[in-house]
Amino acid sequence: MPEALEVKHAQRQLQAINKALGSGRYVHVHKVLHEMPASDIALLLESSPSKSRNEIWEMLDADFYGDVLEELSEDVRNGIIGQMLPEKVVDALEDMDIDDLAETLSSLPHSVSRDVLKSMDEQDRQRAEKALSYGEDTAGFIMNTDTITLRADVNVDVILRYLRLKGEIPEGTDTFYVVSRHDILIGTVPVTKLLTALPDSTVEELMVEEPEAIPVDMPEKEVAKLFERYDWLSAPVVDADHQLLGRITIDDVVDIIREDAEHSMMSMAGLDDEEDTFAPVLQSTQRRSVWLAVNLVTALLAAAVSDLFEATLSQLAVLAILNTIVPSMGGVAGNQTLTLVIRGMALGHVNEGNSRWLISKELAIGFFNGAIWAILIASVIALWKQDWMLGAVIAFAMLVNMIAAGLAGATLPLVMKKLKIDPALAGSVILTTITDVVGIFAFLGTATLFLI
Amino acid sequence: MPEALEVKHAQRQLQAINKALGSGRYVHVHKVLHEMPASDIALLLESSPSKSRNEIWEMLDADFYGDVLEELSEDVRNGIIGQMLPEKVVDALEDMDIDDLAETLSSLPHSVSRDVLKSMDEQDRQRAEKALSYGEDTAGFIMNTDTITLRADVNVDVILRYLRLKGEIPEGTDTFYVVSRHDILIGTVPVTKLLTALPDSTVEELMVEEPEAIPVDMPEKEVAKLFERYDWLSAPVVDADHQLLGRITIDDVVDIIREDAEHSMMSMAGLDDEEDTFAPVLQSTQRRSVWLAVNLVTALLAAAVSDLFEATLSQLAVLAILNTIVPSMGGVAGNQTLTLVIRGMALGHVNEGNSRWLISKELAIGFFNGAIWAILIASVIALWKQDWMLGAVIAFAMLVNMIAAGLAGATLPLVMKKLKIDPALAGSVILTTITDVVGIFAFLGTATLFLI
Repeated sequence: MPEALEVKHAQRQLQAINKALGSGRYVHVHKVLHEMPASDIALLLESSPSKSRNEIWEMLDADFYGDVLEELSEDVRNGIIGQMLPEKVVDALEDMDIDDLAETLSSLPHSVSRDVLKSMDEQDRQRAEKALSYGEDTAGFIMNTDTITLRADVNVDVILRYLRLKGEIPEGTDTFYVVSRHDILIGTVPVTKLLTALPDSTVEELMVEEPEAIPVDMPEKEVAKLFERYDWLSAPVVDADHQLLGRITIDDVVDIIREDAEHSMMSMAGLDDEEDTFAPVLQSTQRRSVWLAVNLVTALLAAAVSDLFEATLSQLAVLAILNTIVPSMGGVAGNQTLTLVIRGMALGHVNEGNSRWLISKELAIGFFNGAIWAILIASVIALWKQDWMLGAVIAFAMLVNMIAAGLAGATLPLVMKKLKIDPALAGSVILTTITDVVGIFAFLGTATLFLI
Repeated sequence: MPEALEVKHAQRQLQAINKALGSGRYVHVHKVLHEMPASDIALLLESSPSKSRNEIWEMLDADFYGDVLEELSEDVRNGIIGQMLPEKVVDALEDMDIDDLAETLSSLPHSVSRDVLKSMDEQDRQRAEKALSYGEDTAGFIMNTDTITLRADVNVDVILRYLRLKGEIPEGTDTFYVVSRHDILIGTVPVTKLLTALPDSTVEELMVEEPEAIPVDMPEKEVAKLFERYDWLSAPVVDADHQLLGRITIDDVVDIIREDAEHSMMSMAGLDDEEDTFAPVLQSTQRRSVWLAVNLVTALLAAAVSDLFEATLSQLAVLAILNTIVPSMGGVAGNQTLTLVIRGMALGHVNEGNSRWLISKELAIGFFNGAIWAILIASVIALWKQDWMLGAVIAFAMLVNMIAAGLAGATLPLVMKKLKIDPALAGSVILTTITDVVGIFAFLGTATLFLI
């Protein structure tokens, strides 16, 4: 009786391998690796610091290379390919599915991918070049060309005899496509329908007519949305004339959904989506410094605003102490709104029709939040510093900044989308700059007017 | 010839409907709604402010209720069900798949779900109660029981005759399960295999033996990881005795993957995952205030640290102006590390075996980043304020805080996971508190020692 699958298994195996590597038991590691599925080896590589990563890679059988590379994230894959000899790269990529091959080639340095293409056989090269020509992140780029097509006039018996002769059906096939003489897609037949249909039924009787098909130039994110919305397992890809070009399967879409959802989270923290957790220190330092540089500029900008009020600050040190509270609350409230709107846009919930409603809503929330926290902070400060006027000043600044935060959080992503800037990438830093500047101005400005 | 699918279509339709609602063309809206698929209606509801949401819902045919409710997010669904009469809720939920029904019931107020269960017929109720008994977020909770099982000794011809008689195969079936006399899972046969096999082959010859199966109590997140790692379309669910209980299909897993990835992003901004973009203002205000309250406490804590240095601040106003720079940079750097580690943990890359390596790496990055930005900020400040000693003080504080940020960002999620606290939820606020406190202490403390 087989054991029920244990998810912890892979993790324990991983630790065991690291231990074995540490104590130099290479023969043992080699044996274990030989029995692991490619996806587990990929996980092992992604979870290893670069030194062990190279050791593990060198112990792999060359036959596994292609399967493992297919499963790796871009960053890790390119790191490994960069250390391989060009001939070995060609060998490794040869067996990949066309969609995975296109993705891998496009992420490699140009000179490497050219070498790989050159050494492929004619037919494969043409297919790879075709896929690359559709452009990254489009339906054409992620589709596979291994469709099974049927003609409308044949019957089930003939099809079954044909399939039995053929002997194999490409992985992930849940639908056969019905095409006309000129390869125009005219219908689809689910695989399961062929099992339940009587032998003398024709394809024409069984097929779903006018099936939904994906245009070859549709961006992959929109493809993913359609799959998610309609619970598809696969979908045909067609050109402008509705000629069948290939199919997209759910396994590729799952990767897109995961990457898309992660993209926002990583971008908002100023990280590259593909950033490898176990990359070398200097590489990571360099990648993260862009965002820190941007933040330094905005922090200096906020300091410059405070600098305008130097005279006020030197008279009342208590203002210096409280100067961070209002900007901090504005930053948090603004980021809540920003995150919500970015997610709403990603899910397709936010559009031109309802954006005005959404902005008013966030303004209203900003007002209510501002009022609540203004009263609270005023009471705390009045009690702590025994100064009701100081409390009133910070309360006013809080209200102003919370409203600004709501307005900025809701409008920024909408404006940035119009300007074709990724809101997840730059939204948060612009927002924080706004809430810092408005918060400091409102607090120190009002204090200068009423307390000095 | 059918049109290639347009993804913008749904959005334009949505705007047209909102316009029609605004101008009171209800008959037109009713007609359009009648022709829309359930998933598009769900998208329309989720993209509408509550007023239009209710109008649209009331115009729907009751037959659609179940299909639409199935597609809605929890927050929106509960809002709608809360306004329906109990009898209508029962009618609407009756036709749902058992996994969707269990999910819906568990998210409803107890009194409503009890009423619904009571009015269901005996067999359905038993199945629903069984699913609920496995506990939310487990494999048993998200599985369906509509499997097709085969015996090992029958041949393809017999199966085909049986399936033709049956006439229909449940949606999303890509695999048949082979069970022994006591429903013990002993093998699987891909649907496509039945199409290519010769009629006299037996199931035993075709089946994959010792198939991987999911234990009924496995958490849904781990189920999703397995689907993602092995590119499954469906997987059998078994109990401790390896008895077949049902199957999980990729469409449910896609939802989990999306939710899981979104969870981190939303939590890190202090939002509820299910927060409805178009919820009423007061509801949203209340939900977001928890996070703002926590932030107020940490902002006051930072102010209290500054307060310790009141004498210093009152002597040198320039310190007040620069006091935000070091905490701000530490916060950004720490959040980068935190986000990366949280993602690494979610992907299963970070574990006990490599966490020490990871912490040293992030410490090293903190040191390098600290050194780079220390030199830069020292130069800027020395030039701006014409004070090299001030530059040296801020440089030292920057270095200390960047190292603290790296250390805190890497260790916090690991510690919180051990304490079974969700790092995405509380990590960011604790981290910022640490970088604020360390940053202010380092800057004002050093300044007090060397500049006063």
